[in-house]
Order: sequence, then structure tokens, then C-alpha cells
Amino acid sequence: MDLAQSILQGSRLALARSLSLVENDQLEGQLVLNALFPHTGHAHLIGVTGAPGTGKSSLVNELARHYRQPSDGSPPRRVAIVAVDPTSPFSGGAILGDRIRMRDLSGDPGVFIRSMASRGALGGLAAATARVVQLFDAAGYDVILIETVGAGQAEIDIARLAHTTLVIEAPGLGDDIQAIKAGILEIADILVINKADHAGVENTERALRGMLELAHPIRRGLANHHSRMEEAPTPAADAPNSPIWIPPIRRTVAPENKGVQELAAEIARHRQHLVETGELAERNRQRFSAELQLLLQETLLQRWLSKLSAHAYQTVLNDLLDRRLSPRQAVERLLEANQP
Amino acid sequence: MDLAQSILQGSRLALARSLSLVENDQLEGQLVLNALFPHTGHAHLIGVTGAPGTGKSSLVNELARHYRQPSDGSPPRRVAIVAVDPTSPFSGGAILGDRIRMRDLSGDPGVFIRSMASRGALGGLAAATARVVQLFDAAGYDVILIETVGAGQAEIDIARLAHTTLVIEAPGLGDDIQAIKAGILEIADILVINKADHAGVENTERALRGMLELAHPIRRGLANHHSRMEEAPTPAADAPNSPIWIPPIRRTVAPENKGVQELAAEIARHRQHLVETGELAERNRQRFSAELQLLLQETLLQRWLSKLSAHAYQTVLNDLLDRRLSPRQAVERLLEANQP
Repeated sequence: MDLAQSILQGSRLALARSLSLVENDQLEGQLVLNALFPHTGHAHLIGVTGAPGTGKSSLVNELARHYRQPSDGSPPRRVAIVAVDPTSPFSGGAILGDRIRMRDLSGDPGVFIRSMASRGALGGLAAATARVVQLFDAAGYDVILIETVGAGQAEIDIARLAHTTLVIEAPGLGDDIQAIKAGILEIADILVINKADHAGVENTERALRGMLELAHPIRRGLANHHSRMEEAPTPAADAPNSPIWIPPIRRTVAPENKGVQELAAEIARHRQHLVETGELAERNRQRFSAELQLLLQETLLQRWLSKLSAHAYQTVLNDLLDRRLSPRQAVERLLEANQP
Repeated sequence: MDLAQSILQGSRLALARSLSLVENDQLEGQLVLNALFPHTGHAHLIGVTGAPGTGKSSLVNELARHYRQPSDGSPPRRVAIVAVDPTSPFSGGAILGDRIRMRDLSGDPGVFIRSMASRGALGGLAAATARVVQLFDAAGYDVILIETVGAGQAEIDIARLAHTTLVIEAPGLGDDIQAIKAGILEIADILVINKADHAGVENTERALRGMLELAHPIRRGLANHHSRMEEAPTPAADAPNSPIWIPPIRRTVAPENKGVQELAAEIARHRQHLVETGELAERNRQRFSAELQLLLQETLLQRWLSKLSAHAYQTVLNDLLDRRLSPRQAVERLLEANQP
């Protein structure tokens, strides 16, 4: 039986093996993903991002536990956790968190945890994460938690993969106006103040509310708040005139499981909002369009470089290093030398 | 007189205008950069990165002030500050810091400050920063401070532009092992504990030393420490057998200007190390090679897309959205439809 078939029949071994093949974009992984792609589109993708020290990993654990044993009577859901660490291009910085997590959730066949560290390739991490998420989706995981560290472009790219993005803050970090970056706020669908039992939680919430008001200025009452939807270049024509989503602020204390059920309810409410307003379809469209362009770019460069002689490349690079050609002129020279 | 000529003659106005043209990669900006590129290669590029709340901007200010009025008797140097904020893809998050800074250093014709916010384009910010830095270099700025917020892939890409990278920590943030990411440590040439008058500075330094020892494990005494150089894929053949650079840890209190002169001396020492070991040439080679690939990739995609009909693209995108094609299959379909 081939890998794709085994995965559809629930083999963890086949899934684990395919994840590596897919992450590294090996040919066999591409074939598995081609075969499984028609089975994707069911999972809810939840991005979780925030600065180090916010207790993000514990919160992801508690969310996973909640989805496995819902206290609200709903059926348990299969959960995948993809922990992405863009700050570890060289060493396996993501491994530590993984090990700690394994202790908590291991043994549950309805949970699968995967750590990814940057390979240093530009754009590579977001693309690899997209592929890994698609594989989990096809394998029947209902909820996929995509956890990233930090607040950079990589996190924003990865947040774009998600349907619902949680931005995690914590008291003591959030007091500083610098710690709450407008750009990160604007990708947040739900703001979470974790470690809400720590001193300073009121300050953090006040600062967040202030930033939210800046990001969503009141024009003519609540109904006219700026929203992320207004920035979409081409809103789906069939989207009904939607209520605006103002990111709610939720407090949690992950180790005591406080506020986690309420957070899950907020996530469900956001999912419903996305479906009802047609924004889910729009986000999917933008996401796949971006992935397509990225893949095209990589493929075109590879094809083109395979036709170029190492000598021609080295000659132009030397001219660049000696400042005889600017980077732009170097590219023009290479394109002339290697006409398709 | 054209822009390039005016810049070489010291016109700030021409420089300001060209910076915008170059940042947005407009044709006129490309021509200015082509004309000025032979004048680059003199500046020392210093990357400054670190988490929000470390007082990074104040430290950059104090460094700039030091280079303008050296207390060690050396001649004043012209300083450019490029403040890059990858977390602000939408709004102008970089502006606030810029205004605060302007108050301190404005009026000094030997200082030029430029803020950049992400345009949301993948890889776009690092490329735009590279161009802006080249323009400052050609315009005769001796020291270029490239300041970034955060700890993501964008920061690492931008750090790769620099000759010397400072990673800034502060007490209270650095206590948490999570706050000190191995990947960020590995791009650091110099570690700075700013706000060194705050409680917890000893803990931060201990944690940093611990991480450094992990990153540079002792094998057979000091001389055999792992180094960044050993990771270079092809060390320059003519590089002498170099002493290894172990990132030093420096304490500063920016508002009181404490430790700033010592930090500048450490930067000068690192510069000398780069020159003497041949690593400066190797870093330049890697930097320009990466920039060339990025530019090639963009140019190839643009050329290819310009030949593709919007209808063909839309058809394939719809097949992808309906899960009839995987992303990889969609790319293959597009490549078939648009043979060069």
C-alpha cells in the first residue's frame, strides 16, 4: 500500500514519514501531497504567535487538551500541533519545547506534534509549513495549531496560513508600548493575555485596548470600525454586508487551565464569522494565491539556474564584488547570458 | 545635474529623494544605484537587533553620537541609521521611534536617519534595506547602523547584510531561557546587555554565557571553539588560519552613555578581525550572492507573469481552490500553459 493510502487509513507511521518528505520537499513527498490534496479543506487552522516568555507553548497544550476532551459536551477532535521556530536556522531550537510537550500529550493517538526549524532558505519556512499543514489536513486532523515564536515577517507569513490567528501577550512584557507592535496587532483575530494571574494584567489590557483603538479607530460608531476585511483588495462579490470583527481580548492562565474553554468558544465564534461573511473563502483564495506565486518563483529560478554555467555565474559575481556591476546590472548581464 | 552627481556632492535633498526611489525599487532609483554602485564598499555596516523593550533605539542613538564626537580623539564619522520594522506591514509603526530620535540627533548634517516598514512583500524588506544601505554607502556615510526589531527570519536576513551584528538583551527579559534563542545568538558578533543598571543583570549575563557555551562548545581548549567561520560553505582559500571570534558580552546603560565607548571599541576590534582573517571578503561574497539570487528570482517571475494571461492564471487558481489540483500540480499546469 502506498504512503497516501496508509495515511488515509490512519497510519501514524506513514504520516510521520511523509511529513519529513513533505517538509524537505522531496519528490516522493510531492507525490503524496498531490494524491492527498483533494482530501484537504476540512481542518480549522489556528495560528498562535507571541513573544518568548508569554507561555505560548503551555497555552497551545491546554487548547489541544481542551479539543481532545471538550468540557462542553462536543465530540473530541483530532489535533495537530505544528511548532515553527524561525529563529533557529542552524540548531534545533524547536526541539526543547517539543520534548516538554511530548511528556504532556504523548500516548494520545488523537494528537500529533511536529516541530519545524528554519532551513535558512528565504521563504522556505512558510512554504514548508504550508505543506505540512496540508498533509495534516488531509490526514483528518480537525484542528491544526500552528505555533510560531517572535514577531517578524516569518510569523506574519505563517499567520497568513491560518484561519484564526491568536496573538499572545503577558503582563510585564505588554506594559512597554514597544512590545505591542501595530503590525502584529493587525494580524490578530483574538488577543490573549496569558499569565493573567501575574501582576500588571490591568496595564497590559489597557495598553492592548489603546492599541486596538488606534488600529480600529471609531469613525461613526462601532459598526463603522476599520476592519481587516476592508483592506482585502477584492472582497468576494457574494459576501453579505458583514458585521465587523473587532478582535476580542481574552485572559488565560494556562497551567491552571483558566479561560481556555472561553478562548476555544471565541475561536469557534470567529470560525463562524469567517464562514458567514464569506471571509473564509477570501482568506483561502489569498493564501493559495500567495503559495502559488512562491512555488512559481522557486521553480522558475531552479529551471533557469540549471541552464546556467557555474563559470558565467562566477564571472558576474566577481564583477559585482569588485563593484564593476551593480546587483541590478549583474542580473541583466546574467539574463542576457542565459536567454530561455 | 542628475541625482547621482548631487548625492556625490553631498546633497541631502538628492539623497532623501533617491532613498525613496531606491526603497520602492523604481526605475529612476535603479539608475541612481547603478551609477553610484562603484562608489560603495567603504562603510562599516553594523546590524543591531534585539527584542522590544531592550532599549535598542537609545543605544543606537548613543552609538551614533559617539561616532559623531569620538571621545578617543579619532575623527568624527558620518553616520546613517536605517531603522527597519518588519512587524509593521500595514501601518507606519517605525515612525514613532523615528520622531523620538529626530529630536536627539536632528540638525547634525553628519547624521541621516531613515525608517523603513515592511511592504508585506516576501523578501522585499531585506532587498529594499540592502539597496538603501548601498545608497548611504555610496553617499559617503562611514558607519551605517541597521536597526531591526524582533527575532524572526527577517531579522536574520537583515543581519546578513551587516559586517558586525550586535544582539541586544536586557535584564528581566533575558532571564527566561526562551528569550535567548540559539539562532539569534548564532548571528551575534557582539552581545550587549543594555539597561545594565537594572536588577537581574547578573542573571542575564549568566544565562547568556551559558547559551554561548552551548553554541561554542569547548572541544580541545579555547583555540578549538566552534566558530561561525567553520560553517561557511567554502572558506576563502587565501584566508589565513584565523583566531576564532568568540562573541564578547558588553554591558551598557544607554541613557547615561555608560559602556558605549567600550562597545564602539569592541566593534572596531571586530572589524579588524574581519579584515585580518579574510572573513570580510567572505561575508561580502555571501551577501552579494544572496542578493543576486533574490533579484534573479523576482525578475524571472515578473518576466514570466507578464507573458501569462490573467484568464489562464485564474482558471488554475480556481482548480486549486476547489482542490482539483495540488499547489505543485497547479504550478506544473501553469508552466505548461506558458512555455518560455
